[in-house]
Order: sequence, then C-alpha cells, then structure tokens
Amino acid sequence: MKPEATPQGIIAGSIPLFAGHPSRDLLPIDELRRIMSAGWAGRRVGRFLNYGDEQGDSQLIDFLVERFNRSEMLGISRDNLMIIGGSTGGLGMITQHLTRPGDVVLVDAPSYRDALHIFRDYRLEICSAPIDDEGLVISDLARKLRQLAAAGKAPRFYYVAPNFQNPSGITMSRERRLAVIDLSREFGFAIVEDDVYNDIRFGGALPPSFYHLAGGEHVLRLGSFSKTLAPGLRIGWLVAPADWIARFVDSGMLRMGGGANPFTAAVVADYCRSGAWEGHVEWLRGQYRRRRDVALAALDASMPSGLHWTRPEGGYFIWLRLPPSVHVDDLEGRAQARNIYFASGKGFYVNPEAGAHHLRLSFSYVPQAELQAGIEILGGLIARMTA
Amino acid sequence: MKPEATPQGIIAGSIPLFAGHPSRDLLPIDELRRIMSAGWAGRRVGRFLNYGDEQGDSQLIDFLVERFNRSEMLGISRDNLMIIGGSTGGLGMITQHLTRPGDVVLVDAPSYRDALHIFRDYRLEICSAPIDDEGLVISDLARKLRQLAAAGKAPRFYYVAPNFQNPSGITMSRERRLAVIDLSREFGFAIVEDDVYNDIRFGGALPPSFYHLAGGEHVLRLGSFSKTLAPGLRIGWLVAPADWIARFVDSGMLRMGGGANPFTAAVVADYCRSGAWEGHVEWLRGQYRRRRDVALAALDASMPSGLHWTRPEGGYFIWLRLPPSVHVDDLEGRAQARNIYFASGKGFYVNPEAGAHHLRLSFSYVPQAELQAGIEILGGLIARMTA
Repeated sequence: MKPEATPQGIIAGSIPLFAGHPSRDLLPIDELRRIMSAGWAGRRVGRFLNYGDEQGDSQLIDFLVERFNRSEMLGISRDNLMIIGGSTGGLGMITQHLTRPGDVVLVDAPSYRDALHIFRDYRLEICSAPIDDEGLVISDLARKLRQLAAAGKAPRFYYVAPNFQNPSGITMSRERRLAVIDLSREFGFAIVEDDVYNDIRFGGALPPSFYHLAGGEHVLRLGSFSKTLAPGLRIGWLVAPADWIARFVDSGMLRMGGGANPFTAAVVADYCRSGAWEGHVEWLRGQYRRRRDVALAALDASMPSGLHWTRPEGGYFIWLRLPPSVHVDDLEGRAQARNIYFASGKGFYVNPEAGAHHLRLSFSYVPQAELQAGIEILGGLIARMTA
Repeated sequence: MKPEATPQGIIAGSIPLFAGHPSRDLLPIDELRRIMSAGWAGRRVGRFLNYGDEQGDSQLIDFLVERFNRSEMLGISRDNLMIIGGSTGGLGMITQHLTRPGDVVLVDAPSYRDALHIFRDYRLEICSAPIDDEGLVISDLARKLRQLAAAGKAPRFYYVAPNFQNPSGITMSRERRLAVIDLSREFGFAIVEDDVYNDIRFGGALPPSFYHLAGGEHVLRLGSFSKTLAPGLRIGWLVAPADWIARFVDSGMLRMGGGANPFTAAVVADYCRSGAWEGHVEWLRGQYRRRRDVALAALDASMPSGLHWTRPEGGYFIWLRLPPSVHVDDLEGRAQARNIYFASGKGFYVNPEAGAHHLRLSFSYVPQAELQAGIEILGGLIARMTA
C-alpha cells in the first residue's frame, strides 16, 4: 500500500501531512559535523567509544541540570537527572519498572499513539479521560478514578504530554495541572510528564511543569533532543526524584549496556556546551511558527464550516474535528487517492472509533508550499463530502 | 569505596582485572573518524540524523545477512535480521516480549551477571543448571526440566552464551547444543543465544550456532559490534525467525523511537562496507590471543596447586576455582588492598554462595605488563592463604 517509503514512511511524490518529525533543512547538519570533528581531537574519544556511565554522559547531565535550574528554577541536582535513549527509551524504562501486566495507566483522550502502543505491549489496562482546550477534564478523571477505586484498582501512573500535546497541540493549564497533582496524591499514582515539545513554543511562557508544581514528588519528566537537534542521535533526559533515578541507574539493562549511547551523547554534550543549542532552538521556533501560520491560514481559507481545529502555540501538530457526516476512513481514502497522507484520529484513542471524526495534521516536515496545497486539497475534499 | 572511577568503574592506579571491555588501543579510533567524516559528505546524512526504520539501518542489515550466509552458510534473508541497541537492547526486547513476571527462564551456572540482573528486574524465576568444560550438563538440565514440568511450569527460554562464555570462557560442544535443542522441542522453550564473543576466536572453527543447528526454529541469536568495533556505538543485531522479527519491529518502542540509533548504525554500516571490519577483527584476534597467552603463562607460573582455571580459545575471560579453604570475599579484600580488582564469582550465580570459591579474570583491558603483575600478586596472595 505504501511502496518505496522512506524510514519515516513517506512515499516519494506525496504530501506527508502525517509526518511528525523535522524536515532535513531544520537539522543543524553542518554545525553537528563541525562539533563532531572537533570532538575527535579531544581526550574524550576513547571514553565515548567505550561503555559509558549508567546515568549517562556526565557533561551533558551537568549542562542540563544547570539549564533547568537557570531557566525554570527547578532546583534539581545531578541526582535528579539521567540521560536516556530519546523519550522512548525513558518511557520504556519507566513502564518496565513501574508496572506489571494488568496494571492500570491513565491517559488523555486523545493521547500519543505510540505511547498507547507501548502500554499495550506491556499488557496494561489503559484508562482514558477526555481533554478540552485547557487539557484534561478534571471532573472526568476524578469520576474514572472513583470507578477504578470502587473496582479495587489503583492506577500506576498518568501519562501526559502537557505542552503542545501530540496529537492535539493543546497545552494543559496551570490550574488543571494542580488539580491533577491533588488527585495523584489522593489516589496514589505517579505522573509521567512527556515534555518533548517544551522548547518549540511560539508565544509566551508555559505553565510550570508538573515536576515543578509538585515539588518533584512522584513526577517523572521526560525531555528529548529529537525535536530541537536531531532525532537520529536518540538522546533525551529524565528528571525525577533521586531515589527513582538511582533505581533506574542500577537496573540490569544499564549495568549490561552502560548509559544511553555514549557516542551520540558526547556529541550532544559538545554541541550544547558550545552554546549552539540555545541559538538553534530560538531559530527553530521562528521556522516552526511560520509553518504553523501557513497551516492555520490555509485551514481558515479552505475548510468549509462545521469543522473545528486547534490553534497550537507550539509543537508540531494541529488537531481537526470533522463534521459528524464525514468519517475519517472515508476522507483518508479520498486524500490518499490525491497523494495526501494525514494521521487518522483513530490511532490516538484507546477505543479507535472515538477518533472516527478526527485527524492530525503535522506542520514540522512538509515545505510551506506543499503544506498550503495539501490543506487546500483536503478542504476541497471535505467540502464536497459535506455539500 | 571506589572513588574517582571511570564510567567503567576503574580506579586510577589500580589493576582492573574485572574490566570486561576493550582497552582504548584496541578501538579503531582513526579509521572510525575517517569513515565518519566521509559519511557526512553523502546523501545519507539527512536520513541518519532523523528517525530511522524500525528494523534498523538497511545497508547494515544487508551487509550482515550477506556475511552470515557467506561465512556460516546460515541461509537467512532480510526478514530474519534486525539491528538492535547492542546485545543489551536485544536481550531487553526479547525478555519484555517473551515473558511475564513469574515466568521461568533457564540459565547456566555460572551465567552472565548482567543478564541475571535483567531477568530479576523482569521478576522472572531463574532456574540454573551447571556447566562443565563442554558447557551445560545435559542430564542436570533434563532433571530440572522434569522437576519444573512436575510443578506445572514451562520455561519460556534458555539464555546461553555458547562461545567463550562470560564468565567461564567455555564453549559449548556441538553435541551438547544438539541435546539442548532436543530438550527445547520436548519442553517447548526458546533458545536465546548471546553470541557476542564469536568473532574473538583464537583457534579453529567454532561449533555451528544453535540457530544453524535448529534450522532457525525457536532460536534468537544476538550479536554485537561492542567487542569487535566499539561498545560506545551501541549497535548489535538479532537473527531470528521472520515472524518474531516482524513482531519486534511492530512494537510500540520501535514505532515511537525508530530503529536502533540511526546515526551510529550508519557509521557502523559505512565501516563494514568499506571492508575495514574483517581486517580489524583479524587483527583483534591476534591482540587478544597474546593477552590470553600472557594471562595463562602468569597463572601457570604463579598459582599454587589446588586451583583450577579455564584455558579459553577466545573471548575475554578466564574463570578460576579457588581451593575450598579460600573464600572469594577474603581474597577480594586482600587483593583490593593491593589495588587489584577482579570479578567475584558470586555475581554469576542465581545463588551467590555457589560462587564463593570462584573468580573471573578479564584479559581484554589491562596492558600485558599489568596483567602479568596483577596475576602474580594474586597468586602470591592465594599461596599465603593456602600455606
């Protein structure tokens, strides 16, 4: 069905509005090459080609601790941070250590498709509550928690992407975060905060992180260089209470293999310490904001009435709600016939049919002209389906 | 207790006979730098800095499939091989997908310490059977299997390092491998073959792999570039039946993060395709063989009677059995007082006390003069303890 696709599943000649990764021109290729060449000359090369420390590259840990304490006044120490193999590596590690098959985890509806896939692989019971424009609807979560408690079930953690959520682009408000923290204490679950889009923000300050608001208690906060540097380096970080970091660092997986990729972690450390990262992030914000603007303008211009879409202040994604008369499967077939691929809403729900009238558009990958053209064609298709 | 240690836990000024990793002079640093510089110039850079294919770097898969079909007549296709984050990444993935908490896995006694740690993290019941100079003692395994069956327990898999086992250096004979395969069919367990030392062989041909002898059925074979190229790149491979590879490739972890580190996998692919790897492996064999010879000569010259040690034909490790009067804890304390660190036998058994009179020496890391000096000092210590 999708022949000659790239590793990201992109078919030559198509408009891949589903693609949730940076385009090549957003990767700092030349700067990374320069950093890597310089790194070989130093003393560290013999170390970063060998097994690394279980907690991860020491210089990168120091850099990130300093950054969070400066930019967010997070008040963490080295004992609160470890380097991981992208947020994926961290989420797998957390799920392995914190759950057993049959345990309950809480997610948003919609939530990140691949995270749901991981939870299913671990044979967890996934319980979801809906979000609105301010994030998780607290009364719905509270009702779910009481139902679970009545059934003798205690959720292990709530998985949430608080900022520019994948797929909705929605950021949870400070008030909602505080209410979730209250519920987490009442019902005894942890919060896994997947914050990989934090730095791709177009507007003002974000609400404080769950980690910050909860004073670091029972919160595990994931971050990544995949969105702000290069996904192929597979490097991210986990901020968590010191006793949890210690537990992860002492795991068999890290004892056997050492910490997250020592080679690429050292490259990332050198890149960050050179001062290049902050400037690159600033530049990226402008690039992604322009693409977001193009996408929203195209939606405003081409979508018929009866649709709703989010207007994200950061991240990669816009979330569309189709009219009740348009099923996403039907639209998907017509769009693919025009060589346009989007992410069906169905993948982002525990019960796929809940997403039967939703779709996710990504503005991170497709060039601006194609982004506009693709959305206009989609708008025309939907207009004909609702005429 | 171990201040100022490197990421590999090595204290400055000590003789780290425990260190099971290559020394810096065995890493092809200059050649890797050359390969990496050349790689940046090519078309692939934009791809290997982005998310990769779930199965791993395509060129590296092709290279390895061709290599195994040529050198071992393994008869595999692309569908039988995937790239993994070192053998560790593969063992974690296999354990996650094939077991649930409380399941039984089978191991040798002794077995690889960090693998036992992973199995404990997954809350498995670890059942071991002893090895002798030809590997696993079949009658003991058969007895264990009958006992388990009588208790209603079916092991999920047998974890084995068939060649130059860590910690013993022992290679399992062809006959024993065939007998294990017979038992695996009778009792319905898989075989996880951790073959990371295969290429570090000093003598003639090895027995065929479990994968080969079983015709690829119910065997998962792990390999790695950590021993023959550089551990810090964190790249290995898994050879397995096509339906199992497909299942792993379709996992949430790989869907979310993409395949094993695309950047370092591309570097390894370029290195292998340049033809440099085979020559480097050949050179490494000579280097490690010389170190093994130094270690064995020092043992022959300095150890008092009453000790037994293995004479490995490859790999990194020699396994010593102490006289009954010498407890390894006692020797360890005296050795550390002389700045000599070895791996206590206790970590390699499900029941640590079974290793109370064993220790593992590694000849992969320490320079030859220190290897000899360290073993001579150990010999002197043991002689005084048995006098």
